[in-house]
Amino acid sequence: MLFEKIKTPGLAHNSYIIGDGGQAAVIDPRRDVDVYLSRAVEAGYKIVNVLETHRNEDYLIGSLEIKEKTGAKIWHADDYVDYQYGAPVEDGQEFQIGRLKIEALHTPGHTPGSFSYVLYGYEEEPWMVFTGDALFAGDVGRVDFLDEDKLDHTAGQLYDSIFNKILPLGDEVILCPAHGSGSVCASAISDREWTTLGIERNLNPKLQYTDKDKFIDNVGKMLEYPPYFENMEKYNKLGPEPLSQYQKPASLTPEEISDLRKDENTYIIDVRTEVSFASAHIPGSISIPLPNLTGFIGWFVPVGARVILISEGEYPTEAINHLYRTGYDNIAGYLGGGLIDWHMAGKSSSTVNTVRVKELCHLLDTDPDQKYILDIRAEEEIKEEGEIADAINIHLTQLLDHLDELPRKKEIFIFCGSGLRSITAGSLLKRNGFEKVNVVLGGLIAWSSTTCPIV
Amino acid sequence: MLFEKIKTPGLAHNSYIIGDGGQAAVIDPRRDVDVYLSRAVEAGYKIVNVLETHRNEDYLIGSLEIKEKTGAKIWHADDYVDYQYGAPVEDGQEFQIGRLKIEALHTPGHTPGSFSYVLYGYEEEPWMVFTGDALFAGDVGRVDFLDEDKLDHTAGQLYDSIFNKILPLGDEVILCPAHGSGSVCASAISDREWTTLGIERNLNPKLQYTDKDKFIDNVGKMLEYPPYFENMEKYNKLGPEPLSQYQKPASLTPEEISDLRKDENTYIIDVRTEVSFASAHIPGSISIPLPNLTGFIGWFVPVGARVILISEGEYPTEAINHLYRTGYDNIAGYLGGGLIDWHMAGKSSSTVNTVRVKELCHLLDTDPDQKYILDIRAEEEIKEEGEIADAINIHLTQLLDHLDELPRKKEIFIFCGSGLRSITAGSLLKRNGFEKVNVVLGGLIAWSSTTCPIV
Amino acid sequence: MLFEKIKTPGLAHNSYIIGDGGQAAVIDPRRDVDVYLSRAVEAGYKIVNVLETHRNEDYLIGSLEIKEKTGAKIWHADDYVDYQYGAPVEDGQEFQIGRLKIEALHTPGHTPGSFSYVLYGYEEEPWMVFTGDALFAGDVGRVDFLDEDKLDHTAGQLYDSIFNKILPLGDEVILCPAHGSGSVCASAISDREWTTLGIERNLNPKLQYTDKDKFIDNVGKMLEYPPYFENMEKYNKLGPEPLSQYQKPASLTPEEISDLRKDENTYIIDVRTEVSFASAHIPGSISIPLPNLTGFIGWFVPVGARVILISEGEYPTEAINHLYRTGYDNIAGYLGGGLIDWHMAGKSSSTVNTVRVKELCHLLDTDPDQKYILDIRAEEEIKEEGEIADAINIHLTQLLDHLDELPRKKEIFIFCGSGLRSITAGSLLKRNGFEKVNVVLGGLIAWSSTTCPIV
Amino acid sequence: MLFEKIKTPGLAHNSYIIGDGGQAAVIDPRRDVDVYLSRAVEAGYKIVNVLETHRNEDYLIGSLEIKEKTGAKIWHADDYVDYQYGAPVEDGQEFQIGRLKIEALHTPGHTPGSFSYVLYGYEEEPWMVFTGDALFAGDVGRVDFLDEDKLDHTAGQLYDSIFNKILPLGDEVILCPAHGSGSVCASAISDREWTTLGIERNLNPKLQYTDKDKFIDNVGKMLEYPPYFENMEKYNKLGPEPLSQYQKPASLTPEEISDLRKDENTYIIDVRTEVSFASAHIPGSISIPLPNLTGFIGWFVPVGARVILISEGEYPTEAINHLYRTGYDNIAGYLGGGLIDWHMAGKSSSTVNTVRVKELCHLLDTDPDQKYILDIRAEEEIKEEGEIADAINIHLTQLLDHLDELPRKKEIFIFCGSGLRSITAGSLLKRNGFEKVNVVLGGLIAWSSTTCPIV
Repeated sequence: MLFEKIKTPGLAHNSYIIGDGGQAAVIDPRRDVDVYLSRAVEAGYKIVNVLETHRNEDYLIGSLEIKEKTGAKIWHADDYVDYQYGAPVEDGQEFQIGRLKIEALHTPGHTPGSFSYVLYGYEEEPWMVFTGDALFAGDVGRVDFLDEDKLDHTAGQLYDSIFNKILPLGDEVILCPAHGSGSVCASAISDREWTTLGIERNLNPKLQYTDKDKFIDNVGKMLEYPPYFENMEKYNKLGPEPLSQYQKPASLTPEEISDLRKDENTYIIDVRTEVSFASAHIPGSISIPLPNLTGFIGWFVPVGARVILISEGEYPTEAINHLYRTGYDNIAGYLGGGLIDWHMAGKSSSTVNTVRVKELCHLLDTDPDQKYILDIRAEEEIKEEGEIADAINIHLTQLLDHLDELPRKKEIFIFCGSGLRSITAGSLLKRNGFEKVNVVLGGLIAWSSTTCPIV
Repeated sequence: MLFEKIKTPGLAHNSYIIGDGGQAAVIDPRRDVDVYLSRAVEAGYKIVNVLETHRNEDYLIGSLEIKEKTGAKIWHADDYVDYQYGAPVEDGQEFQIGRLKIEALHTPGHTPGSFSYVLYGYEEEPWMVFTGDALFAGDVGRVDFLDEDKLDHTAGQLYDSIFNKILPLGDEVILCPAHGSGSVCASAISDREWTTLGIERNLNPKLQYTDKDKFIDNVGKMLEYPPYFENMEKYNKLGPEPLSQYQKPASLTPEEISDLRKDENTYIIDVRTEVSFASAHIPGSISIPLPNLTGFIGWFVPVGARVILISEGEYPTEAINHLYRTGYDNIAGYLGGGLIDWHMAGKSSSTVNTVRVKELCHLLDTDPDQKYILDIRAEEEIKEEGEIADAINIHLTQLLDHLDELPRKKEIFIFCGSGLRSITAGSLLKRNGFEKVNVVLGGLIAWSSTTCPIV
Repeated sequence: MLFEKIKTPGLAHNSYIIGDGGQAAVIDPRRDVDVYLSRAVEAGYKIVNVLETHRNEDYLIGSLEIKEKTGAKIWHADDYVDYQYGAPVEDGQEFQIGRLKIEALHTPGHTPGSFSYVLYGYEEEPWMVFTGDALFAGDVGRVDFLDEDKLDHTAGQLYDSIFNKILPLGDEVILCPAHGSGSVCASAISDREWTTLGIERNLNPKLQYTDKDKFIDNVGKMLEYPPYFENMEKYNKLGPEPLSQYQKPASLTPEEISDLRKDENTYIIDVRTEVSFASAHIPGSISIPLPNLTGFIGWFVPVGARVILISEGEYPTEAINHLYRTGYDNIAGYLGGGLIDWHMAGKSSSTVNTVRVKELCHLLDTDPDQKYILDIRAEEEIKEEGEIADAINIHLTQLLDHLDELPRKKEIFIFCGSGLRSITAGSLLKRNGFEKVNVVLGGLIAWSSTTCPIV
Repeated sequence: MLFEKIKTPGLAHNSYIIGDGGQAAVIDPRRDVDVYLSRAVEAGYKIVNVLETHRNEDYLIGSLEIKEKTGAKIWHADDYVDYQYGAPVEDGQEFQIGRLKIEALHTPGHTPGSFSYVLYGYEEEPWMVFTGDALFAGDVGRVDFLDEDKLDHTAGQLYDSIFNKILPLGDEVILCPAHGSGSVCASAISDREWTTLGIERNLNPKLQYTDKDKFIDNVGKMLEYPPYFENMEKYNKLGPEPLSQYQKPASLTPEEISDLRKDENTYIIDVRTEVSFASAHIPGSISIPLPNLTGFIGWFVPVGARVILISEGEYPTEAINHLYRTGYDNIAGYLGGGLIDWHMAGKSSSTVNTVRVKELCHLLDTDPDQKYILDIRAEEEIKEEGEIADAINIHLTQLLDHLDELPRKKEIFIFCGSGLRSITAGSLLKRNGFEKVNVVLGGLIAWSSTTCPIV
């Protein structure tokens, strides 16, 4: 028997491969599918089915490439979107994988056609349930992908799916959702690497609203919708291009990058740490430190744009994977020698000023009128972690829409949790002509570690 | 600077990647090109040129897939064969790779349009020479690919290429040929992993014939021509299919194999050791132990045939690579569970009898009329290593053409150097209805280790 | 947070590493500890505690080497055995790993001092329980390590541990036992890769005896006790030698092996497949195909003996690991060139005859008096899978004690499930002078696949 | 046959493993010996001899650990230093490795007892020569390890060794030295990855002095002697501690580092890039970007000091290897979370100002009296690459001895080739209380890329 959870960092995505008797099924594969192919091959299994829990909006799905490399059959949920490949799954449909049985369970709410898949063991009892984006450890899926006035309806559907279909499978059943902590598909997914329906019934805050109306009140909310989601939806319907036919993004020289960046449609994305970027970066480049790349690129770079990556000089394997997983296929290359090559070529570079929280306390004491504190955390974070006195809050994702509210003559001090998102904000301000930009290193956590006042 | 020799076992093939200043060239790439792509990527180089020394007949070249994955330019030697891709290289043409220079040198003989490539270092002196199949460590290339009556001409060309073009580069120049010991492209390539023109001038037996006529006499000979060569020539002209688009050969069940083998065009190739095969194998399968696969499959399996691989049960990565490298693209899969699965499925299997040399001495003493000793080594081996008394010699590659000369009622004892080729012969005889087949384990080397008589 | 199950094939052993806030704990590490060290290092965690569930008898524990390489503290269960290192764990003792808490729970039965460890998540509810050898997926631990007349007592203890301490943690709690399917520590562990207390409460056959007396009746049985267990117990008390200080077992020539095997204390263990061994093996060698090595070597090779390994020629990494994990530290080396080298050196080799089930049916029809069918499966297997007409049953592990019951003049046909254990039996018979030894390829499964009669 | 060059970056060190007929020899192994052990094991060879070319002063040799792991015999050159293990090699001594022969050749000069090893192929002609530090590609070994007044003597010895012993082996012989480009053992080693005696005879600048007196004049010079050399000499005599017994350096928290750094004997070594360090670093830490670590740590950190490493947060595998290879065994650990953790803990950090060359041109125009240009390149570099107008030259390695010559009130602009060494200098100045420290990014290469004046 083969059972493995394949985790994709950045996307905080979980996919699963299940095999028995020489046959295997993959649930919700990511776009770069080598990992599934080699797991199957190493274990001597043939992938015969790809099961999708819903039409994904946050990443490109690898079903089609698995099919091309193995001949597996693809089963779509949300089939009303008119897929150009694969076949629709039906409620109650069963898939036999050796002696194991998988049963499709219609669990709408996150999307109208979402499915869960129940895995039955040799003893023919429910053993695991793959809930896609319906139910997570510590949270439930968002229900705001239709119109706002349908929120009550979709939240109600999700309530029914969870309370009347999934939870009744039994406390002892192991829960296998499509996302872990850090996903954009829900705000509060817990760190629990493994969980069960019983654990969720006890501990998941959203499942404490056993009253349907209260559940709808709490879950039925509009959340942020990154612009690239629309694109994912389109590509997932058509089937993304097979990655195996792409050229590998190549090393670029400073000269080549200087030429390419003249084109307006070229975005230089710098995935180094916040301090590296602050110290020296190619003018106009956007800083998104690697751990944040998947989460934020969709807000600042239009799909289809040509992307150049800046790493410390090494081949940026992970960054490239992240880009492909979210549909940024037009990757021109990366700065092969790192910033030192850029400087040795005599090119100019820019900086972002940094301050430490201790300095900041001191700075704020003097001449406060000339200081502007910009807190770019999300609303919920501010509620949970505390507010900074006199700070203006604009969530990072909305920053570009509010540039004209920011003062160009004051020193702007940018705050987030740790400093990682602040550097992204800093790079966006610099790129838009702001001069007096300061990133607070350590962010709110540092602020809390010292004796500075939080409201 | 990047310089690496990439060795391909089985083919005994050497290819090379050379880089400087961010650019790289590959010389004579094999068909599966990931190794070149990743070497370049890891080191931050961009492959810009693929240089071929000649139109290859013993393996499929990977130039086209490199081009598709990197945009590199392909340079063909032997361009008269009317390539469907790439461009012809010209005598004296220079390629600049950073500060390194590569110069094309027309060195005909092995083929009419063979080229060598001279690599110049920063000091602009000849540093290395890539001779393709013109000059090897310990041997020279074969010259029998045109008509037999052109042997003197081609051998003479090779003489001129070596003595008047290559050797004059200087004793100190490092020699980088396209093959190492074990290749079908020359019979006597030495084990020297690295060599120089001076070492070859001193030690290469063929280069001791400094008189052109004597050289021609010794080198100008017709050698064996495996049937698949013709196919390689054709595919190398068209450009082989890109491997990255293929499905991975899959695990097959005993039942699936039972079905597939009913088709006459299906060949079951067993790459296990000689003793495994002897003990139990699928009836009708051909034994070619892995180390011999590339060298012998071309003699016994028609190109285009469907191939099923039998390993010990593990995924036969190397065997699959070997097949693809020599154009056997129609790989149905492999027996996932190994022979034990076959037996557990209640399928019947065949055996080949084995004897040890000590037993054999004894056996031959009694009833010699009913014994038939078949020595399947090549003529040169027999000359070098000695002959076995009363043995009949038929080279393994010619065996299928001489089946009617073999006695069906006598016990046939098959001999080679070690036993590895004997099992191939044994499998072919069994497949053709011979019953009294015995493989001598240890072969001539064992024979020599004991006190049995060699003539 | 870090949570990983580390599986050790052969031993069918599970160990676990749990980390949070920079600190990690390892539960029941195997002897070769690199895997724990690198997991911790890659994730940036420091191993601070090694927790043992009980004094192990089936493998050597790696606690001491982890301590030497990390400075971690070792916590022993079963501390009455007078450990020469580490400290005793106490009932209710708590270990803080970052924000996670682990609580020790005395769960005697398998051994008098067995402990389980309950892992609490951030919400301070029981999340997982590490039960060692108390409770498995589909089975419970054996209780026969004390005197036979204490069986009722120990089985009763286990009942209390499971029903009154472990199960009350809640159906939803994830169960993490020390063994998976295939272990010698329980006969019927299920294939369920992940399970929960609720699933076990429903499906584990032993947990259906909710009546204590019935549980005792069914669980309180004496099982086989491999001789090497005693040794494991001793070494686990002293602390096994650190593997990092050992020389790597080396490649041996046929000549060196010929010399070494003259020594009575040298055992040649052949880990190749059943068909390879049958075809040719070094006289006197014992066949234990790799998947069976850990399970059976302890019955046939005394601890302290010098072992020589025979593989197909490759470095036998896994076999060496298996030996070290069960205390066979005196590994002289392996036959570097495989059997072909042995034969080329002119050495003699032996065979074991093999038959396929179809032949066997036929053979048994004629002259049945001269045939002897030896079924070496365990009693429970025979009960479950069926008996073969006229077969004599001696379990493989007991074979050496019953040699004088076997006929030396009849053809002996050896049966097991698949043929894998039969070859071990065959090798033991040959080693003890039996001549007429036949191994049935495919075993009972093949028998059932065809039309032969099972009683 | 096995032949492989094992390269150690940082040390620019080459070692070699040579095998034939199941036996292998290693020449000049580095301290971490796993690479030799696994190469031998994978290829089925047993390491029987470790050959040293001389007593090394620039790295710790791994002979003793190879011996402990394989039982190989160690052969010392320079045996007068009274080794505590191994045996002396003698001039003309021969080592048989299968059918290959290695002959020891006394080639003094670099050290009094230096040996070269000549490898003879199957044909018994010189094939390769392993010259240790006597002859490199493009350079010869330094001869200044004895008293200055012995320079003529040692340079003369080296002349005789090269011209009368090594070169006469023949132009065609392949040269295998102990170092490649970038070593501290010679200043001008060329990039030629492979070379021959003939190539060196033609191109090596030092070998153009065929007149002995001229050779002595040119080669007989005192060079820099890093303080840690003395220590290497001592440890190489005793035999370094086996690394396999060490604990792995662990992840440290900001708090732990804050505590440890109070101790004067603790050095924080930051191996990040120059821009990362400039932007934010732990006060008092020394910047040595990874590629420079081996080359410079010996000048600034006393052997025996406790070292803490700062990386981007990942486990600093390479940095740790570098430290062990040069005897810095007291590694307390590394900052597991990288600088972001440091800041989140509310700790303060320092910066070094950076300037780009274009800004610098401009800056220097105004108020030149308040500017101080510090060129920390070595004398030879300045000669070759050009001098900067008005710059003061102090070689980086000598900087700490000249601190009182530097102005504390002027802005100091530090120059090197690329900026990589300048950040080390910058960190040393900051650590010693200088405030007005500026590192020129891109260094002289950038300066040359633009239009700034070089003298």
